[in-house]
Amino acid sequence: MARGPLMIIGGAEDKLRKRTILREFVAASGGPDARIAVIPTASSLGAEVVEVYDALFRREGAAEVVAIRPESRDDAHDPVLVKSLADATGIFMTGGNQLKLSAIICGTPLGDAIVDAHERGVVVAGTSAGASIQSSHMVAFGVGGSTPKQRMTQVAAGLGLLRSSVVDQHFAQRERYGRLLMIVAQSPQLLGIGVDEDTAAIVEHEVLEDGTDREVLRVRGRGAVTVFDPARITTNAYEAKRSAPLLASGVVLHVLPEGSAFDLTARELLPHVAEVAAEDVAELAEAGQDLRRLARDIAAGDVSPTTLKRRKARQTKKNPPSSRQDGAST
Amino acid sequence: MARGPLMIIGGAEDKLRKRTILREFVAASGGPDARIAVIPTASSLGAEVVEVYDALFRREGAAEVVAIRPESRDDAHDPVLVKSLADATGIFMTGGNQLKLSAIICGTPLGDAIVDAHERGVVVAGTSAGASIQSSHMVAFGVGGSTPKQRMTQVAAGLGLLRSSVVDQHFAQRERYGRLLMIVAQSPQLLGIGVDEDTAAIVEHEVLEDGTDREVLRVRGRGAVTVFDPARITTNAYEAKRSAPLLASGVVLHVLPEGSAFDLTARELLPHVAEVAAEDVAELAEAGQDLRRLARDIAAGDVSPTTLKRRKARQTKKNPPSSRQDGAST
Repeated sequence: MARGPLMIIGGAEDKLRKRTILREFVAASGGPDARIAVIPTASSLGAEVVEVYDALFRREGAAEVVAIRPESRDDAHDPVLVKSLADATGIFMTGGNQLKLSAIICGTPLGDAIVDAHERGVVVAGTSAGASIQSSHMVAFGVGGSTPKQRMTQVAAGLGLLRSSVVDQHFAQRERYGRLLMIVAQSPQLLGIGVDEDTAAIVEHEVLEDGTDREVLRVRGRGAVTVFDPARITTNAYEAKRSAPLLASGVVLHVLPEGSAFDLTARELLPHVAEVAAEDVAELAEAGQDLRRLARDIAAGDVSPTTLKRRKARQTKKNPPSSRQDGAST
Repeated sequence: MARGPLMIIGGAEDKLRKRTILREFVAASGGPDARIAVIPTASSLGAEVVEVYDALFRREGAAEVVAIRPESRDDAHDPVLVKSLADATGIFMTGGNQLKLSAIICGTPLGDAIVDAHERGVVVAGTSAGASIQSSHMVAFGVGGSTPKQRMTQVAAGLGLLRSSVVDQHFAQRERYGRLLMIVAQSPQLLGIGVDEDTAAIVEHEVLEDGTDREVLRVRGRGAVTVFDPARITTNAYEAKRSAPLLASGVVLHVLPEGSAFDLTARELLPHVAEVAAEDVAELAEAGQDLRRLARDIAAGDVSPTTLKRRKARQTKKNPPSSRQDGAST
């Protein structure tokens, strides 16, 4: 059975205008049948945060929204709390302090219940701290800056819904290039995934016809998802002193805007079905017709300079020099 | 003949304390025989800037420092100004506005004289704007941010001392990841080179024994040099609209701290001669001796449990468990 989708949101997702990402989460969770569990443990404003997401998810049509708010590892062992996840179709973890969230739920019955839910197909989403905790390795905290430096960040253990990876969020907005590069330089078996604000990396587990499976990351939202693949890295991270800038040579970089699809298993971009302008299609069809006519004329020995001139005049009239806008050339 | 070295400095080079980079520039220009031409055209504070560098270079032992300060393309055609470059052993271009600098000197006799000087072996250095102008393609201006977005920066033509490349400076400090990625996504034949503050990319043209040549970039200073190699990029830069985030998948990233050497021609890291701790060498030599003794004993049939025990005791005494510091494991 395929595992449930993960929605890894880079923080500051739009709540007031288009609400693309939150809407997509409710839809994936079953729309009018969605029963959503909100886990606000990362936040210091637990009740208020629940109130906001409760309103947002109901507005998008969710049938039910419940809050699950452990504030200690003891709470996360409470069978009543754990059981309330049993019939959830979607789980949403809020932003805040991811180390508080992971320290309270990872390795507890509640943490295990989230993993089980994911395994049986439930949608698991999280924003900011709730995004970070989804990977096997988690950025605990650290400083910004785009040059990777020794000791600029700390790693803790996440829930591991996304394996062999480390997720960072508010990626462009808080200049987290450097710290994510530092982590993959020290742990080159991990894939580094940086998610911008108001942007979601949606990871789906696909079982293919030949029985193999793969995880595919698709991007929604206003920013980009950055992937560092350090499989062939050359680095000095095992010997760099103090806070020295790190050598990180040969990292393959993928910056993925909305609409991109990336195979996390093969670590490569999936082909994009290009948008085709309707007028290009029409023009091509017409040119094809004209070519076929030309071929017939040649076969019939009916091509004189006059014929060609006439044909040319006809064509120019049909397709006047176009003035259509091209995004890149203006 | 090999071309002269380029020193591409990311701005804000240390002028007060160790002055590593400026000292290296004077040394490369001939030390006590150095005749340095300072070109402060990028700066709006021409005279003051010259005064500062004049004092700095003389303090490092330069024999002579002259200012060459064209303020218009007319000035840059002045034969007296041009001739003053003839016997320079080092040229230094200051920071400021690189578009002013390039608009005044590129394609003028003065600009050509800088290129000629480089061709005949003169050291050409520049910081900030003076760094940008050295590449074939130049960042004219643009905004910061680590996600590449359409139209976030403008490209103009540089002096072309460094071919097929685009240099950006103040790289980590002003978050210029995104704009450099945008440029290489639009022009994948260019190598993108981002230089941090107080850091120099020193490019040397090497003619090898087999007659081939290559350009090698070496890093000095406190930050790092970031290289984007887009040779195998997949991008949507030719069709992205407005200020959309760009797809840039498959870019090979190299972050190079001080001591790194990168072959710009082959686009690969050059092997690093690892630092070897003296105590490791001594320990290995001793172990080797002991192994040879063991081999002799085995050959002589002289290895009893007692012999081995004695040998072990001797060795532990000689090499007590070490307490040496390891940068990475503390």
